Amino acid sequence: MSDIKTSVSYSFTMRLYIKNKPGMLAKVLNTIADKEGDPGAVDVVKVEGDYKVRDLTVSARDENHASEIANEIKKIEGIKVRNVSDRVFLMHLGGKIKIENKMPVDTRDALSMAYTPGVGRVCQAIAKDKEKAHTLTIKQNSVAVVSDGSAVLGLGNIGPEAAMPVMEGKAMLFKEFGDVDAYPICLDTQDVDEIVKAVEWMSPGFGGINLEDISAPRCFEIENRLKEKLDIPVFHDDQHGTAVVVMAATINSLKLVKKKLEDLRIVVVGAGAAGVAIIKILNDAGAQNILCCDSTGIISENREGLNDSKQWLAENTNPDNEDGSLQEACTDSDLLIGVSGADVIPVEAVEKMAKDPIVFALANPDPEIRPEKIESIARIIATGRSDYPNQINNVLAFPGIFRGALDARASDINEEMKLAAAKAIAEQIDEEDLGEEYIVPSVFNKQVANRVAKAVKKAAKDSGVARK
Amino acid sequence: MSDIKTSVSYSFTMRLYIKNKPGMLAKVLNTIADKEGDPGAVDVVKVEGDYKVRDLTVSARDENHASEIANEIKKIEGIKVRNVSDRVFLMHLGGKIKIENKMPVDTRDALSMAYTPGVGRVCQAIAKDKEKAHTLTIKQNSVAVVSDGSAVLGLGNIGPEAAMPVMEGKAMLFKEFGDVDAYPICLDTQDVDEIVKAVEWMSPGFGGINLEDISAPRCFEIENRLKEKLDIPVFHDDQHGTAVVVMAATINSLKLVKKKLEDLRIVVVGAGAAGVAIIKILNDAGAQNILCCDSTGIISENREGLNDSKQWLAENTNPDNEDGSLQEACTDSDLLIGVSGADVIPVEAVEKMAKDPIVFALANPDPEIRPEKIESIARIIATGRSDYPNQINNVLAFPGIFRGALDARASDINEEMKLAAAKAIAEQIDEEDLGEEYIVPSVFNKQVANRVAKAVKKAAKDSGVARK
Repeated sequence: MSDIKTSVSYSFTMRLYIKNKPGMLAKVLNTIADKEGDPGAVDVVKVEGDYKVRDLTVSARDENHASEIANEIKKIEGIKVRNVSDRVFLMHLGGKIKIENKMPVDTRDALSMAYTPGVGRVCQAIAKDKEKAHTLTIKQNSVAVVSDGSAVLGLGNIGPEAAMPVMEGKAMLFKEFGDVDAYPICLDTQDVDEIVKAVEWMSPGFGGINLEDISAPRCFEIENRLKEKLDIPVFHDDQHGTAVVVMAATINSLKLVKKKLEDLRIVVVGAGAAGVAIIKILNDAGAQNILCCDSTGIISENREGLNDSKQWLAENTNPDNEDGSLQEACTDSDLLIGVSGADVIPVEAVEKMAKDPIVFALANPDPEIRPEKIESIARIIATGRSDYPNQINNVLAFPGIFRGALDARASDINEEMKLAAAKAIAEQIDEEDLGEEYIVPSVFNKQVANRVAKAVKKAAKDSGVARK
Repeated sequence: MSDIKTSVSYSFTMRLYIKNKPGMLAKVLNTIADKEGDPGAVDVVKVEGDYKVRDLTVSARDENHASEIANEIKKIEGIKVRNVSDRVFLMHLGGKIKIENKMPVDTRDALSMAYTPGVGRVCQAIAKDKEKAHTLTIKQNSVAVVSDGSAVLGLGNIGPEAAMPVMEGKAMLFKEFGDVDAYPICLDTQDVDEIVKAVEWMSPGFGGINLEDISAPRCFEIENRLKEKLDIPVFHDDQHGTAVVVMAATINSLKLVKKKLEDLRIVVVGAGAAGVAIIKILNDAGAQNILCCDSTGIISENREGLNDSKQWLAENTNPDNEDGSLQEACTDSDLLIGVSGADVIPVEAVEKMAKDPIVFALANPDPEIRPEKIESIARIIATGRSDYPNQINNVLAFPGIFRGALDARASDINEEMKLAAAKAIAEQIDEEDLGEEYIVPSVFNKQVANRVAKAVKKAAKDSGVARK
């Protein structure tokens, strides 16, 4: 038996013509069971002559598994498979978001207020005072989700068209959890200067910019330059969203192991966008001893030919300028954070950690180390997956962060606001409920975004970037 | 008495505290009547001590008139005016459109299909075949409404922020009449090269580009270059939307006066974006004798120092290479079209026209000539205003044109499609219903967009630009 579970993300619906005689549906279900598929809804569509027409939904492990199951069902006598439709693709037909008018424009009066001639007065008011765009247009609540398709999920550089489904999904999460109106913009350029210009030019109608799935190290320069140029928040979620949730998980883990952040030896495996952002937020929160490892080991000032972001890491981590392997870095460490790739952390590294090891293995879908392998060694384990406890998921952060930033009409999302978000996420779990398998709230807990928004709004005011 | 009518586009709502004694509300209404305001809804909000609290809505002629009325009411003894809110501004608070998810993402299953991990398979399918973005993303139904704010309504160059309310209004009309998901993008640049680049870079997620309120002659080059570069329709509505509806009005007018397009002498007053587009569509439809006048008279090949678009006009209109004034152009003409400015056409010009003069005076809000002045001379008069018969309004064209283009997955909106749209609009009125005051259908007739969409889709197929 395969140890990979079936998933609705590989589910398909078959339209079956089933001969009207006893035991036919059971045969179908037995076949699915033999093939280790997971049957879902079974609807009767209609009766046609000798046949009953049913829509049957099955979850499979992957695409091959799905077609294996369908082929096996086709072999049953008295069954005709008319149509096999992939539920994920069905759901994506025509896209996942739409525009709605807040009021109808189907009468003369409505038209003359929402459009000409009434709209002219609103335009003139904004022409006199640009700031009014924040109250009189969608700028109040709109975020551009911008990608160049260069580093989409684990799929790599698949280009702007292929990135659209992810950006639409992101826009859905903004709406569902933060009531933010986000619109996906996928750019047909991967040149840093051009991306900066494109975002700058399109920015007047947006209240914030969420950069997404742009490859490192380009993402650092793009974000920094846009933050300089624009007076609305610019936030690269792959960096900061992840960093905020890792920080929240760290705060709650430390309550359990009764250690202090400033006393920890922390190892971050992976020097990409997320790794750098995690190190920055840990530094800002008071961590004193962070080591960052890339594929050749600990990054130190002794290393030569480092690129800009690794040079920054060498200067801002590793206070004792240690050299060595990942395993050497892990020796006596308290917190090990993987934001790298599948299986890069060996069990031996975790074995060398100090008492009560905390391990966040966040590579998706395959973590740096399988939780099963270190259950008996690590005290707390978190991953990026939904099928293990403690899922580190950006959805906990970005909807509330932007909600709070927009509510404060913030000109920036600064370090104070990110840290406030992390604390708010951590505090969502009452201390008496905290446990090794419950250090971050569920992604479906809608109170989280609310709490984060309030904390971020307050931090924006306290740090002087709020404009209302 | 003023001859300007009150309008809901200048309406305001007052919160009044009215002393509880007989005749008080009547006093308020009498005051409004004295000041020539137009009272609307009168709601009771609550009773507070000796006072009844009411919200009273009044339409005025303009902002000054509105405050005059409010000030007069403040003088009444026993009345306190607590709050005067402008209904148009109230309606614009927070913008006029929003994003909606087509399905919720509030369960694990939904999240794993609409977002990770399920979305990855959809991305991969598009990465293998870009064309699939047309079916699996919002590209299927999305249009960018792009402006640089350089020529907004009659307000001129008010910049991108101030242009947003118009572009949002445009997006509303796209939704209401064409069920198209349009998103407003106002660009922070007025450089032709930069606008072309910005639109090109943002285009992967859109199924069409509607250019709006970009000043001439820049709009010509921008549209032409984008049409060259992109494989989705690019349509400058100020040009072609107007041209299509003018063409429709012309078709129906000719049925009434029983003349043929190829026999007409046509004068177009105004050599801007709309004028050029109107001349092109009339030419394409078979007109043989068009004269175009700018502020110095008829444009002919004898004129020197003409810019590119006027040079084109000199070469493609005025077959006998006439010189002269607007009045000379109008002599013996059949159709006079103004797309210029207020009051530029004198009554004498219309008096010189041939039998059954047709006059379209489209400048907004003040036409080239007041219809009242030529009622007894012209047989058919159309304007851009809603308070006269025969309103030439782009809303009749663009929602259906884009609906049809998207349905055909057209790579372009070509001349054949525009002409098909014009004919469809004209045919919406049955011949027996046609009359001098009814040559174009109402903008609120929702059948128009449907009919236009079908005709445009067919024309796209027939002319070889459809992709499905």
